[in-house]
Amino acid sequence: MSDHVSGPVGPFEPPYYAAVFTSVRGEDDDGDGTAYGETGDRLDELVAAVPGFLGMESARTPGGLGITVGYFRDEEAIKAWRSDPEHRVAQRRGRAEWYESYVVHVAKVERSHGFVRG
Amino acid sequence: MSDHVSGPVGPFEPPYYAAVFTSVRGEDDDGDGTAYGETGDRLDELVAAVPGFLGMESARTPGGLGITVGYFRDEEAIKAWRSDPEHRVAQRRGRAEWYESYVVHVAKVERSHGFVRG
Repeated sequence: MSDHVSGPVGPFEPPYYAAVFTSVRGEDDDGDGTAYGETGDRLDELVAAVPGFLGMESARTPGGLGITVGYFRDEEAIKAWRSDPEHRVAQRRGRAEWYESYVVHVAKVERSHGFVRG
Repeated sequence: MSDHVSGPVGPFEPPYYAAVFTSVRGEDDDGDGTAYGETGDRLDELVAAVPGFLGMESARTPGGLGITVGYFRDEEAIKAWRSDPEHRVAQRRGRAEWYESYVVHVAKVERSHGFVRG
C-alpha cells in the first residue's frame, strides 16, 4: 500500500493472478496519515509472507488516484491474502476512514512482457 | 497515459480484460516532457475510440513508478488497441526516449467490486 520508488515487478511466468486496487483518499486525512502509512507498511510485510505472493507495486498521483497491484501465483494465494485477519481489519478501516471510493479487479494474467533500457 | 484526478473506473461486468502497464520514466526528461504529455493526451483520445474500450486510469508517484490500467470488453478490443498505428509509434518512442523500464500484464478479470462512501 505504501509508495515504492523501485522499478516495476515482474513479468512473471503466466498464468498468475493480479489484484488491481484503485482508490481515492478522503480529502481530510490529516488526522490519520500516520496510521494509514503504518498500516500500509505492515500490510507490505504481511502480504510478502503469503505463500504464492509474487510481488506488489503502488503509485499515487498527489491529490488524485492511487493504484496498487498485487501479483499472486494462484487463486489460493489471493484468497489467503483476502482473508488475512489484519488485512480484513485494514479493509474495514479503509471503508470507514481512509477511502472516498475504491474498485478491486481480480484477474488472471495470460501474458506479460517487460522492457529494460539496455 | 496522462494522470487523471477523477475516481476509479468500473467495476464492469466480468469477464473483461485489464492491461496493466507499469513504468519508470528516465531521469533526464526535461527535454521531452511536453511531447510525452501531448502523446499521452492523444493516446487517451485514441483508446477511447476503440470498440470495446471500457475505461482507463493512471497514477504516478513523483520520481517513482507509474501505473496505467486499461480495461477492455474482450481480447479483440485489446488487440485492436495494441496494433493501433499511432499507439505503436508511441510504444517505440517510449522504449527509445521515455522509459527506463516497463512491464505489461494482460489479464482476464474474473471478478470485481467497488465501494463509494455513502
